[in-house]
Amino acid sequence: MPTLLPSSEQPQIDTGRIHELADALLPVSNTIRPDSVLDNPYLNSCLAELIEILHELHPADIAAVLESLPLQSRLLVWKLVEPESDGTILLEVSDAVRESLIENMERQEILAAVEDMDVDDLAELADDLPRQVVAEALQSLDEDERAKVQASMSFADDQVGAIMDFELVSIRADVTCEVVLRYLRRFESLPDHTDKIFVVDENDVLQGVLPIRKLLVADPDEIVEHIMARDIVRFRPEDNTEEAAQAFERYDLVTAPVTDADGKLIGRLTVDEMVDVIREETEADMLNMAGLQEDEDLFAPVLDSVKNRWMWLAINLCTAFLASRVIGAFEGSIAQIVALAALMPIVAGIGGNSGNQTITMIVRAMAMGQLSGSQALHLLRKEVGVALINGVIWGGVMGVVAWLLYKNIGIGLVMVAAMTLNLLLAATVGVLIPVIMDKLGRDPALGSSVLITAVTDSGGFLIFLGLATIFLL
Amino acid sequence: MPTLLPSSEQPQIDTGRIHELADALLPVSNTIRPDSVLDNPYLNSCLAELIEILHELHPADIAAVLESLPLQSRLLVWKLVEPESDGTILLEVSDAVRESLIENMERQEILAAVEDMDVDDLAELADDLPRQVVAEALQSLDEDERAKVQASMSFADDQVGAIMDFELVSIRADVTCEVVLRYLRRFESLPDHTDKIFVVDENDVLQGVLPIRKLLVADPDEIVEHIMARDIVRFRPEDNTEEAAQAFERYDLVTAPVTDADGKLIGRLTVDEMVDVIREETEADMLNMAGLQEDEDLFAPVLDSVKNRWMWLAINLCTAFLASRVIGAFEGSIAQIVALAALMPIVAGIGGNSGNQTITMIVRAMAMGQLSGSQALHLLRKEVGVALINGVIWGGVMGVVAWLLYKNIGIGLVMVAAMTLNLLLAATVGVLIPVIMDKLGRDPALGSSVLITAVTDSGGFLIFLGLATIFLL
Repeated sequence: MPTLLPSSEQPQIDTGRIHELADALLPVSNTIRPDSVLDNPYLNSCLAELIEILHELHPADIAAVLESLPLQSRLLVWKLVEPESDGTILLEVSDAVRESLIENMERQEILAAVEDMDVDDLAELADDLPRQVVAEALQSLDEDERAKVQASMSFADDQVGAIMDFELVSIRADVTCEVVLRYLRRFESLPDHTDKIFVVDENDVLQGVLPIRKLLVADPDEIVEHIMARDIVRFRPEDNTEEAAQAFERYDLVTAPVTDADGKLIGRLTVDEMVDVIREETEADMLNMAGLQEDEDLFAPVLDSVKNRWMWLAINLCTAFLASRVIGAFEGSIAQIVALAALMPIVAGIGGNSGNQTITMIVRAMAMGQLSGSQALHLLRKEVGVALINGVIWGGVMGVVAWLLYKNIGIGLVMVAAMTLNLLLAATVGVLIPVIMDKLGRDPALGSSVLITAVTDSGGFLIFLGLATIFLL
Repeated sequence: MPTLLPSSEQPQIDTGRIHELADALLPVSNTIRPDSVLDNPYLNSCLAELIEILHELHPADIAAVLESLPLQSRLLVWKLVEPESDGTILLEVSDAVRESLIENMERQEILAAVEDMDVDDLAELADDLPRQVVAEALQSLDEDERAKVQASMSFADDQVGAIMDFELVSIRADVTCEVVLRYLRRFESLPDHTDKIFVVDENDVLQGVLPIRKLLVADPDEIVEHIMARDIVRFRPEDNTEEAAQAFERYDLVTAPVTDADGKLIGRLTVDEMVDVIREETEADMLNMAGLQEDEDLFAPVLDSVKNRWMWLAINLCTAFLASRVIGAFEGSIAQIVALAALMPIVAGIGGNSGNQTITMIVRAMAMGQLSGSQALHLLRKEVGVALINGVIWGGVMGVVAWLLYKNIGIGLVMVAAMTLNLLLAATVGVLIPVIMDKLGRDPALGSSVLITAVTDSGGFLIFLGLATIFLL
């Protein structure tokens, strides 16, 4: 993908204008083709302007515009995009939007979009394409390329093999830099992000890497073997992409080789893919914590959104029902002191808020690989300390407020005790949920916010109403 | 920073073993120096092993280990790190951990760590260093370097000027590629991440860029002017770093030039800094949503954590108090039908959960620049649709449950109506909060989770108890 843009400043995309134009054209969208001449001169000028704007945008910018458009306008804009850019744009948009675009393309259009695509890009798209199209696209490849696409497709989405790139330049160790420079000059162009050349032996086994930075300053007569780096960060196709991304981040890599079990060079990873992995990973954590199942298209049809979110809502309802039964068990107490009903959500609420703070911090530390199980105890001690202080301070404040409000010091004291205990519960469970999830090999972010709230709600009601029943009745 | 590692596979850091060793040595940590010989032979062997492990780690890995250690062990390990790595490690750790390390260093140690640092790195650290140390470090620089550090320090953390890098290679447009190659060979080494060479005129005004990829395949006699790219993504020092990072992500950049108002080349941005910006940005959103003020050291002292979190807890208490007063207003109704107290948290809970799903999705879309105010209405319509369906389904389920539980069809019907209405409220406010925050120029993530819960709690109680009072009493 190009690092250059058709404008000499950072491009300002007028998304607002595109939306206006698309809205204006929406009523006649069925009749519109890129070469249409519309009867209505105003609409015709809108169409011309929209095509003009799209024409000047980088495919990645068009992808962003498509993400931001409601479905009908999105499909209209998609029709007007130059067919040559179709493939690149499909690679840039999110999975949800890609699906919406592909669903509305003819088989021939899809085929045209994916032909001439790099094999790694084709492999990336293949999961979302109709089977028949993939089969046809594969047939147009030579045997070697087909094998690469199929190998790539055989890996899971979170494995290095699924996102590695097959375009790379390799040389032998026993040649001079002069020879390397001459060899490179024979290429039409070098692969994107080429910051190093891979040095292999006659069996393609990786021997080292020659950073371009070194090649450029080296004496032309120097033998590659003498200046290449032998100790390199390399990956296996079955490695986890998030771990690979962390290595890229940590060691400031631009590219890294991927080798098989025998050390044979089979591909490379590039930083642009790793940036996407980092972005997706942190976002997935955020979505998962709130109980959203997967990346949802902002403008997904209502029913798709309902499907995407129903599970955590159902779980939430179950836990809310449980909390409701806890309260139900104390209906006798509430009937005697109605104030309890008004005060109990305060106890539950502060526990939920504080527990969410704890759990968010820990989920984040785990995502960064900063937390191993062995420190759980240490963390627990710290969080319990924080909870104790908060309990005494905020419990004290609300205790005084409750006392003044209901002219009953007993209610005030029960408030202090219940809030402190629920904060302690929130701290403990806030540490334990992600640690246990991690031990079980689960994603600690998954619905953690829903879970902690469940515990602090039921727990808070139980503690408060329990204490009130014992001491106030 | 090196792209090469002292091991031939991806390094496996035995964090667990480092923790064990640090724990064992903790009781004698006061007496330990890197060259200490301890009386106890077991401890002595622990010390030797720890030093050996640290010696073999990349500075970025040591930084990760330091992040994962409780304060006392962290300071012990920090003492044992080779002083040459101190500067690099300080750059790699998070702000909170950096502070804890610098607090415990002698002035001379800090000075030794920052001397010989690149000017952009020194500028990055300067905010966290004691003033006197910064003054001394600045004095050891020449005038040009000092001016760069001071310029860099004058920008806010979220401005491109604060993170740009001054190391770059520039050439003139009228020379041949052969001359460029010879010129490059005169460098001892090229700056990290050099993927393009900047082409400037005699006043340092940026004319274009020459990608190394093009240079390497070009005919040696070709004039730079003919093959350089003129239309380039460039930044101004006052640009926002998050927007710059999005441009890097979108256009797959490795480096990009930074120019002043006159087009003069003054620095460059590199992808490794941008990766950090992306990571920090998405994490900040996640932390902010939960009401955590800033990046908190996992092992921060208890009081620091209390300070970091108190504000949102206080806000939460205020909103919980409000919700409590709403219930208080209906104490008469609850006294007559105690079941209301048990059922009301279900209405509030599902609203909070559903509202959080909506708000999380929108905050994420806004962070990606996918959402502008003009689509708010469209989104609102969609979310309201989702809420209606969920209200009818889940409200129906809970309505039947409540009916069966309390043998009262009226309570069941009020449940259905209240849940549906609270879901509609959650959807509306879940869209409006981030859209309004954004319009006001605030970060839409900031405490959004606390805010939406506040609305759905008070709103849920009001709707449910209000309907019950009207229809059941």
